Amino acid sequence: MVASLHQHIGINEIALLLDELFEPLNRIETSDIFDDRCLGRRLHSDVVSLRNIPHYPASAVDGYAVRASDTAHASPARPARLTAKSVYWVNTGGWVPEPCDAVVMIEDITEEDGTILLSRAVSKGANIRPVGEDISRGQIIGRRKERISPYNKALFAAAGYRRIQVLPLPRTLFIPTGDEIRSLKTIEGEGDLRPGTVPETNSLLLSGIFNQWGYPLDVHPDVLPDDPEVIENTVHDALADYDMILLGAGTAKGKRDYSAEIISRVGELNLRWVRMKPGRPVILGKASGKPLLALPGFPMSTLVATWAVVYPILKLLEGSGPAREISTTEGMGSLEKITTKLLMHHSSSQGIAEWLRVKCADIDGERYSWIMPSGSSTMWSIAEADGFSLLPENALEHPKGSPLQVWMVKKVDWQKRALYQGSNDPGIERLPSFVKARGAEMVIRSVGSLGGVMALAREEGHMAACHLLDPATGQYNTPYIKDIKGSENWVKIHVYDRIQGFLVKKGNPRKIRNVHDLARKDIKIVNRQSGAGTRVLLDTLLAEAGISCQYVMGYESVAITHLEAAGLVASGAADTALAIKAVADAMDLDFIPVAEEPFELYVPRKFLDHPGVAASLDALEDPSWRKVVEAMGGYVWKN
Amino acid sequence: MVASLHQHIGINEIALLLDELFEPLNRIETSDIFDDRCLGRRLHSDVVSLRNIPHYPASAVDGYAVRASDTAHASPARPARLTAKSVYWVNTGGWVPEPCDAVVMIEDITEEDGTILLSRAVSKGANIRPVGEDISRGQIIGRRKERISPYNKALFAAAGYRRIQVLPLPRTLFIPTGDEIRSLKTIEGEGDLRPGTVPETNSLLLSGIFNQWGYPLDVHPDVLPDDPEVIENTVHDALADYDMILLGAGTAKGKRDYSAEIISRVGELNLRWVRMKPGRPVILGKASGKPLLALPGFPMSTLVATWAVVYPILKLLEGSGPAREISTTEGMGSLEKITTKLLMHHSSSQGIAEWLRVKCADIDGERYSWIMPSGSSTMWSIAEADGFSLLPENALEHPKGSPLQVWMVKKVDWQKRALYQGSNDPGIERLPSFVKARGAEMVIRSVGSLGGVMALAREEGHMAACHLLDPATGQYNTPYIKDIKGSENWVKIHVYDRIQGFLVKKGNPRKIRNVHDLARKDIKIVNRQSGAGTRVLLDTLLAEAGISCQYVMGYESVAITHLEAAGLVASGAADTALAIKAVADAMDLDFIPVAEEPFELYVPRKFLDHPGVAASLDALEDPSWRKVVEAMGGYVWKN
Repeated sequence: MVASLHQHIGINEIALLLDELFEPLNRIETSDIFDDRCLGRRLHSDVVSLRNIPHYPASAVDGYAVRASDTAHASPARPARLTAKSVYWVNTGGWVPEPCDAVVMIEDITEEDGTILLSRAVSKGANIRPVGEDISRGQIIGRRKERISPYNKALFAAAGYRRIQVLPLPRTLFIPTGDEIRSLKTIEGEGDLRPGTVPETNSLLLSGIFNQWGYPLDVHPDVLPDDPEVIENTVHDALADYDMILLGAGTAKGKRDYSAEIISRVGELNLRWVRMKPGRPVILGKASGKPLLALPGFPMSTLVATWAVVYPILKLLEGSGPAREISTTEGMGSLEKITTKLLMHHSSSQGIAEWLRVKCADIDGERYSWIMPSGSSTMWSIAEADGFSLLPENALEHPKGSPLQVWMVKKVDWQKRALYQGSNDPGIERLPSFVKARGAEMVIRSVGSLGGVMALAREEGHMAACHLLDPATGQYNTPYIKDIKGSENWVKIHVYDRIQGFLVKKGNPRKIRNVHDLARKDIKIVNRQSGAGTRVLLDTLLAEAGISCQYVMGYESVAITHLEAAGLVASGAADTALAIKAVADAMDLDFIPVAEEPFELYVPRKFLDHPGVAASLDALEDPSWRKVVEAMGGYVWKN
Repeated sequence: MVASLHQHIGINEIALLLDELFEPLNRIETSDIFDDRCLGRRLHSDVVSLRNIPHYPASAVDGYAVRASDTAHASPARPARLTAKSVYWVNTGGWVPEPCDAVVMIEDITEEDGTILLSRAVSKGANIRPVGEDISRGQIIGRRKERISPYNKALFAAAGYRRIQVLPLPRTLFIPTGDEIRSLKTIEGEGDLRPGTVPETNSLLLSGIFNQWGYPLDVHPDVLPDDPEVIENTVHDALADYDMILLGAGTAKGKRDYSAEIISRVGELNLRWVRMKPGRPVILGKASGKPLLALPGFPMSTLVATWAVVYPILKLLEGSGPAREISTTEGMGSLEKITTKLLMHHSSSQGIAEWLRVKCADIDGERYSWIMPSGSSTMWSIAEADGFSLLPENALEHPKGSPLQVWMVKKVDWQKRALYQGSNDPGIERLPSFVKARGAEMVIRSVGSLGGVMALAREEGHMAACHLLDPATGQYNTPYIKDIKGSENWVKIHVYDRIQGFLVKKGNPRKIRNVHDLARKDIKIVNRQSGAGTRVLLDTLLAEAGISCQYVMGYESVAITHLEAAGLVASGAADTALAIKAVADAMDLDFIPVAEEPFELYVPRKFLDHPGVAASLDALEDPSWRKVVEAMGGYVWKN
């Protein structure tokens, strides 16, 4: 059989290909409705009631069951007299046996010597819920393909069912592969993860996502080595038990990427390369009519390939309808789609759809968004994102202020979320948990000291913090702030002083003593981005020392946060960086102090009542937060 | 301790009372992040990474790890020559060991006699992902109270965790009670459910709802009898193991309603009677600081008490925040709130909030809704509802056309849903499954023949069907339709003929032969609602026989559907009813045929292309549907 291979297709063409390749599973499964795993399953056929509900004439009140004909002509003047033998006491819901055909409420009678006096006639059927009033035997109570809800479940049980026929759930196996991949089940903390080994986490990501979708996923117990024969045999055996097989990684063009070859050998290769980023190297094939995929290994790539290809296949196999009717973003589990105003410029590539991780905030009724670090390997930004965006192939430039549509995956309480834009600071990064404990939220966007106050001036944030040294006056912050339009309506809060200095490797192997060493040819630094207070400080130190930046190696390389700079020093990519003491302690580096600087927060007066801002300011006074920050080292309180 | 008892409080006061009575649980639980049951759990504390990710300098490409200093001054004219001993091959993600500090891509080199030639210098750190690039050790990667998502799960595993501290999930026990209540686990089909016994289904409803909320629920294995001592002992014992106890039923003021008394004895009674309908008799108390509730037993009452009281308590106990910040409708799991136009008049009671089950449809861009049968016992309408509505205490009259806000619990594809208003017919009721198989939807509102065509005239439906006999001409339908404005743009489809006749109990115990027997004093009928084609037929038959309706017992009592009429005859509440043969067969009644009538569908021409209408018309031709309908009996096809 000659395989038809589609390469470099667009994201919107995937579904059409899937509809061509695969068909709904045709087995019938049975689900126990006394087991909550039945929830969300789809009915295989219409469900008809096996019972009448109620299944007997039931009293709607507490009272006496009577024969209506015995009460005819009763009046207050001449009440009907019923003997105890001709009436029955019934509770609400109780059975009204023949020949009784009505119930009189306890309030409507009087009892006299064992005889019941009734002062008015009741009609046949009065206060009786007839047989089948709620549901008649044979009535349709569930329709084919409907999902079982808690309400259905109770209804089906009442209607006489214990088990019910449902559409099958596709059975999927995920097989992680890669010589360098280590199963995490036995490795905790820093454990014995050697350099060059990568922990296997995609199985956790996938099992969680499948769980939320309501589909089962088995994970192969071993991470397979990059040995095509081993992988092929495993896939071959799994085809007997599973409806779909997912290979983890091996999708690119490297020396050890065997997935495409294996799929070709086991079945036919149908799709390679999708015009999207990340996730481009996803591979799809078919063996014994079953989908066989290889998902690119980086977490974000795995994720988008799962949304764009795996989810529509599952829906199709389950019989929910054709893949072309499944929206590409449905698998994301998005709560809602919102339109936001972009806080930054973004350029995307020609001819490739791009997936973005997005964070959002509402400022004075306008929803803003910014794009998070987009490497396909950054797991943190996936977990931290409020939502995701999919830029179509033909979208290229997205200027600051342009609209961005975001599929939200987190529920945001917009009124309580305050946006901090400004200087990166590990102490501030600890604050949001204390804000959350106060029932509000603070989100942080690190844009540098100058970036923060300028954003505040443009009303693109609720708070900004900075530590900007003015070389001319030697003063911090005020010389910068005073010229900003509107800043007269800002309130200044002095948070703490921070100790800045040079980070060097433990033992200071390069023997760096002060700023003059930065001019040495054997020393490479990593700088901070333009507008960062720490960069301003470095520039001032260099100017004072009479060193031109063109003689400082690495001056143009930038890290966005103190921690990132520390990581570059720790890994040897740079010999030193100017940063605060807290990160030296965290990354086990030595520290050469050079300055103590005030770290100050600015808040427009009108935002002081914003719940997120108010909680943030209150949290700054929290002794527990201060204790956490003090433990980091390099912070000094002035009050 | 003197209990403070709140009675007859409004629905909005519940949360304030809960905040006063209960506090978040203060135990810490641990969740295994390799088990998907961790999903949705809330973090007990901030989570800090135990590892750097990557934890070693990792190559970002396939290539050779080199010392950057060895490549200085390399140019195409004078390439750097590196011996095999001074370089290492690394795959993407591989370790770049010291003293190497850069990676050159395979594309940038040539190999010559075991020597590697490099035509340009590389800088320190080139193509290396530094240690901690994604996440630094000590970085906050999860915040207290955040819910664990699939993304967090993978991230925490990568960061060195196997188990994680989470906020506790409240443990709840549901104890069904009632002498008449039978556990369903052993009863299938019609089983041995005797008259007067009621199947226990609330445990299924509750376990499903708790499951969707992500909270555990245990159900007491036995249904307890109405014996206060037995119940009290069970509650008392359960307090040792559970954080909340729910008693099923026993909430009213009947002879066997002991719940309030039991709660008072075990602890203190705090709340009785909420000003809402249904669900009014909900009871809340507290013992050993733990909530103790009794839920009214009817399904809809249980449900709304669960939404309004149980859900906010669970959130509060879990530590999600105070109950007053939980919206009353959040527990409903609503997808969205929409505003609709009411298709009917609705009156609600003064001073009582009212919960409604609502069904909706979109006609030409306008969203309409109607209220489903509202008895607290009707399980079917709970399962069938698209959403729910909560009318506030002060809302009294809701005229037809007034706005109604609906919290949708089902996802409706508005463009594909067609609304049929018109005559009730069991054959038509089988049609929606066949419409669904065609990828569209048909919803039915039984409003009688005349009601249907008048709704069509007002553009409040997509289709209507009727069987209206004109006594003057003896003709069906056309004499009624021709005078309706706009009906010249309607298309008529003859569906089938139906056989109408008198339903009587098996064996015809009252010896009913024809319409003349309806005038007998010992015969009580049940009629159909005004505007129903079957009522028009009865009126015609009576007129022809010269019988005035005032001499027909039960003429004013009405059933809304044929099945309901059949149920009333089967249960003895009426001796006979005019209805179609299909329901006689379904309810095991005898049938005395009196007429064969055409059953015709009308569709405005402009709706013929509506996907729901098109699929409905197509389904009418489906041989499988016709087979199902034929099996019911009493239907005759003319084509």
